[in-house]
Amino acid sequence: MVIKKAGGLSDVVAGKTEIATVGKKGRGLTYRGYAIEDLAQSASFEETAYLLLYGKLPNEVEFEAYKSKMAKLRGLPAGLRVILEQLPAHTHPMDVIRTGVSALGAFEPERDRQEVREVADRLIASAASILLYWRHFHLDGIRIDTETENESIAGHFLQLLHGRKPDDLHEEALDISLTLYAEHEFNASTFAARVTASTMSDIYSAVTTGIGTLRGSLHGGANEAAMELIDAFATPDEAEMGVQQMLVQKRLIMGFGHRVYTVSDPRSDIMKRISQSLSLQANDWQLYHISERIEQVMQRKKKLFPNLDFYSASAYRLMGIPTSLFTPIFVIARMSGWIAHIIEQRDNNRIIRPIAEYTGPEQQPWISIEGRA
Amino acid sequence: MVIKKAGGLSDVVAGKTEIATVGKKGRGLTYRGYAIEDLAQSASFEETAYLLLYGKLPNEVEFEAYKSKMAKLRGLPAGLRVILEQLPAHTHPMDVIRTGVSALGAFEPERDRQEVREVADRLIASAASILLYWRHFHLDGIRIDTETENESIAGHFLQLLHGRKPDDLHEEALDISLTLYAEHEFNASTFAARVTASTMSDIYSAVTTGIGTLRGSLHGGANEAAMELIDAFATPDEAEMGVQQMLVQKRLIMGFGHRVYTVSDPRSDIMKRISQSLSLQANDWQLYHISERIEQVMQRKKKLFPNLDFYSASAYRLMGIPTSLFTPIFVIARMSGWIAHIIEQRDNNRIIRPIAEYTGPEQQPWISIEGRA
Ligand SMILES: CC(C)(COP(=O)(O)OP(=O)(O)OC[C@H]1O[C@@H](n2cnc3c(N)ncnc32)[C@H](O)[C@@H]1OP(=O)(O)O)[C@@H](O)C(=O)NCCC(=O)NCCS
Ligand SMILES: CC(C)(COP(=O)(O)OP(=O)(O)OC[C@H]1O[C@@H](n2cnc3c(N)ncnc32)[C@H](O)[C@@H]1OP(=O)(O)O)[C@@H](O)C(=O)NCCC(=O)NCCS
Repeated sequence: MVIKKAGGLSDVVAGKTEIATVGKKGRGLTYRGYAIEDLAQSASFEETAYLLLYGKLPNEVEFEAYKSKMAKLRGLPAGLRVILEQLPAHTHPMDVIRTGVSALGAFEPERDRQEVREVADRLIASAASILLYWRHFHLDGIRIDTETENESIAGHFLQLLHGRKPDDLHEEALDISLTLYAEHEFNASTFAARVTASTMSDIYSAVTTGIGTLRGSLHGGANEAAMELIDAFATPDEAEMGVQQMLVQKRLIMGFGHRVYTVSDPRSDIMKRISQSLSLQANDWQLYHISERIEQVMQRKKKLFPNLDFYSASAYRLMGIPTSLFTPIFVIARMSGWIAHIIEQRDNNRIIRPIAEYTGPEQQPWISIEGRA
Repeated sequence: MVIKKAGGLSDVVAGKTEIATVGKKGRGLTYRGYAIEDLAQSASFEETAYLLLYGKLPNEVEFEAYKSKMAKLRGLPAGLRVILEQLPAHTHPMDVIRTGVSALGAFEPERDRQEVREVADRLIASAASILLYWRHFHLDGIRIDTETENESIAGHFLQLLHGRKPDDLHEEALDISLTLYAEHEFNASTFAARVTASTMSDIYSAVTTGIGTLRGSLHGGANEAAMELIDAFATPDEAEMGVQQMLVQKRLIMGFGHRVYTVSDPRSDIMKRISQSLSLQANDWQLYHISERIEQVMQRKKKLFPNLDFYSASAYRLMGIPTSLFTPIFVIARMSGWIAHIIEQRDNNRIIRPIAEYTGPEQQPWISIEGRA
């Protein structure tokens, strides 16, 4: 096998999946056969998570049961709350959620492989609680009650964040964005979670792997990096000049490009419309116009298109979400995809253990310490 | 590309490495060109870790400086101690070390890529402290001081565990076993850590991934599983019958087989001699004789050879180490290899993102919830 560039397993088929297609004919995305456009328009995030984890869309009875079950799983064990209080105020929220999920595995271990979907539901339902309990404790000095009346995970998140019933458009926008972020085939974090699962490790270990992998700026971290980029400019003209300069310096423009999509990212079109609606509602077009200009420059100069992370940035800002929570929101959504893949990996498992091409020194004779340079 | 069995990236070259060779001509293992036999015989674990992380064997001055630096890095932040106190007594120690390392990343984040070797030294020096602080708090109700006078990591571990200066042979045996466990090319946990690093995530995330991946029984967890197997038998004859029965039932015998080695695992020969010496010292041959008999059965019936995990089990038991700490010891050792690979991945990075063969349903028309079965 020839290694392309510095590896990256680009175009290497690492296994089979029934969960999603990415980039069929350069663009399409489906979850278990359903087009992302249909899901974004007609399904809530809870329906989408159910589809991913349970393999089918829920009927009305199943869906009511699922939602009320999820709503009951938002509390945190007392020991976990103490742990969150210990994590310093300056901690990156991705380190908080990574540590919080790892610790939840100590309080509520996966005792039996049959339990995996129970743990999945628990993790998806409580992830926002972990983040926002920690945040309010350190920012406002209060111990919040993480159980809310709100039916949806998007509503639960916004309500905990802002401490009031969320605006309808905000809740709907966040809900759609969770659906868009939920699943994406063998992306780096999902693939890493599958490697962890392939050793027969537990679900918390595999999800913790997913979180740590998503954190990087080339992956989930790109939505925060895109926000910083957009924030660096006060006007579209400034953005145009700035991005052109960055391209000359061969710098990466965060929120653009994709390993698998070659023509466009179908999620980005949906997210762009959401960002537009939120700008209209707020009557504040600054971020949207700067973003659009950056998109134009990238198209013209590099033929690169925005990925989902790019318009998520302005949309989340318009919902009043602090930048450091952007990637953690991606975690809440993607947990559903990770765990669907963990289950799939277990169902037909072989340990994922590639080999390397050795480019190091020839075999060396031993030199005892006195003789070393 | 053809997928062998259920994937597993078997024989797929996933990248280049200068760090180790595994299984050249079916058996050899070298770290940066040095044969594992030479390292086990002549280098301490600290020398080995230095070789892996700094790329050369240390001279006398460098080595003294390194050892005294490492000895000063054994204390734990107060907040981390509180967190360890919160993790329940029944927690698996792998969940403790996974959570502890993740939390250390909150207290002492990697601020700058230049710092990676500083964090590496800190993690390797303090891993035993994390484990044994937690253990003594829950088992004995005491808050131990994790800073010891002992020069070596093996000595530090045994001293914290038993609360007294370790026996010389035990310290030497553990030291060699750390060297044997230190590095192994693109094994599952190292490869997973590289996937995490490839998104440009931080070192704590990548090491946390390594820990969670090592935890599985097909990988690092095999040393604990091997101990349980050996413990199930009172005599060699019982073991012979029991293992034959398990093979008939198509059950895996933990501590045998390897993805890359085809003839033998060179580390196992060394570990077997160590287990022999410890049995001789203790004048207690039960575990050793049971282990040898299992080895013979596996050779005769399956042509499978023991891997490093098999004789590690009896050796660790003879040092008085509880079974649930076997895989965490593997963590302490392998951190050196993981971080060498994380550094190598960063130095020539491309995001590791393979693709999947889709075997799921064809594209489905949307069905609204009222119409679903
Ligand atoms: C997504 C990404 C990691 C894919 O990586 P990849 O498949 O390995 O792509 P490559 O690094 O091989 O990129 C191909 C070329 O396009 C360039 N390129 C890719 N994305 C770019 C970007 N966002 N800005 C500027 N140039 C980019 C690369 O520099 C490379 O140029 P070269 O051939 O001159 O070296 C990459 O596009 C990227 O880093 N994007 C920015 C981060 C981001 O938005 N991530 C979220 C992904 S959902
Ligand atoms: C190490 C290991 C995961 C390698 O996995 P792999 O390369 O995917 O090997 P495979 O599963 O393809 O094994 C090949 C055949 O040998 C058998 N085999 C491998 N290891 C075996 C073992 N320990 N006991 C019984 N049979 C074993 C497999 O069942 C398989 O038989 P099949 O062809 O009839 O299905 C595997 O040998 C194993 O599970 N060993 C036990 C766990 C262990 O000791 N892990 C520590 C490794 S350092």
